[in-house]
Amino acid sequence: MNILLTNDDGINSEGILALYESIKDSGNVTIVAPDTERSAVGHAITLSDPLRVKSVNRNGKFFGYATSGTPADCVKLAVRAILKERPDMVVSGINLGPNTGYSVLYSGTVSGATEGAILGIPSFAISLGTFENPDYTFAADFARKVTRLIIDNGLPQGTLLNVNIPAVDVKEIKGVRIATQSKIALKEKFDKREDPHKRTYYWLTGELVDLDGEENSDINAIRENYISITPIHCDMTNHGFIDKLKQWKF
Amino acid sequence: MNILLTNDDGINSEGILALYESIKDSGNVTIVAPDTERSAVGHAITLSDPLRVKSVNRNGKFFGYATSGTPADCVKLAVRAILKERPDMVVSGINLGPNTGYSVLYSGTVSGATEGAILGIPSFAISLGTFENPDYTFAADFARKVTRLIIDNGLPQGTLLNVNIPAVDVKEIKGVRIATQSKIALKEKFDKREDPHKRTYYWLTGELVDLDGEENSDINAIRENYISITPIHCDMTNHGFIDKLKQWKF
Repeated sequence: MNILLTNDDGINSEGILALYESIKDSGNVTIVAPDTERSAVGHAITLSDPLRVKSVNRNGKFFGYATSGTPADCVKLAVRAILKERPDMVVSGINLGPNTGYSVLYSGTVSGATEGAILGIPSFAISLGTFENPDYTFAADFARKVTRLIIDNGLPQGTLLNVNIPAVDVKEIKGVRIATQSKIALKEKFDKREDPHKRTYYWLTGELVDLDGEENSDINAIRENYISITPIHCDMTNHGFIDKLKQWKF
Repeated sequence: MNILLTNDDGINSEGILALYESIKDSGNVTIVAPDTERSAVGHAITLSDPLRVKSVNRNGKFFGYATSGTPADCVKLAVRAILKERPDMVVSGINLGPNTGYSVLYSGTVSGATEGAILGIPSFAISLGTFENPDYTFAADFARKVTRLIIDNGLPQGTLLNVNIPAVDVKEIKGVRIATQSKIALKEKFDKREDPHKRTYYWLTGELVDLDGEENSDINAIRENYISITPIHCDMTNHGFIDKLKQWKF
């Protein structure tokens, strides 16, 4: 089995190394990942610049391919230009920080797996719910389990799994919850500053507000120390609104 | 009524000018758009760089605010930092080129409207189905109509409209079709080249293959000279797969 790994924290991140170490014996594993961090790039692809690819070593040994593109670019490049055989699975992560709620739309890591799904390849994204002192051990083990389960069960065309692991001691993890993407809004603001040349600039900051009341949401699951697994798909159509919209007088 | 305009072709594009001219008498219209083209940026937001904003004139008169960010950044910045009053509607476009099928995921123009929907503001994206010799006249008129219909009818929370206009003479337009996001795959490949320094680089190229057999898809609608209107939402959860996934032995 051919497995493609990517992420958005870049090929030199610890998260993709932990993923690789855990999964490398499950098949023929190839890494194609961004050469530097590409967080919050959404489902961006690179059209107006050429893409570069270079081989990257780790500890003196070939580790994978670094590209100048986004995670979605990496998956496209891998499938269409780098790999000799089409991958049987795409795994994106392990992301430093959770990808839950609307962050799913902003996440480069999720978009790597989404691109896999668009290309018809069973795919999942995996993220660890902390930005500090990450311990990827459990998440890496769990990624191996998800890989096997997807092989055994398959996924519907165009659907991927978005897995989030709570960043707590393994004994505190209560189990798995199949979750929905939370609709909770971030409390965002812009920090307005002046540079030394007296020009204004803005930094985006944001924090999660309290609970959203959706018991089965991904955000609530990891808050309550459950592993959150959300099936997401690439069809953004709101099918439930079509009949109503047909009555509008365009 | 306060209306916010954005796009991904940049504040100097002809598409946003046509939109502005058509819509300016419908309310208090403010433009906040990228300072240069930001196509195919997906739903990217800028976290690791500060954002800059500058005023832009057109024909010697204030036209709008240009930012160093993506369309999603523009909408966030407008709502959270630039505008004195929260907009009642976000309109993104008029995009040069269609945003149908999986392009919806890659599109900066759609993501501008998606960001509006995330912020709870009724929003739509509008695109013209050609990359050459665009005539925005009809699309701009139609945008005004959509604005009024959304005011009259409202949109469900988290849902936006993705409007695509076929690039044909107005007499050839057959009407409006409420459509779904096509699942047709692009025939993509990478054009591999060597630079003068003998280093390899890749250009992404792609073309649409033939019909997808989904009669009500957005791609088919504009091919058949219908205006395509797809309701899309920010919830990527595949709700239909949740019960099945609950039976997996995690």
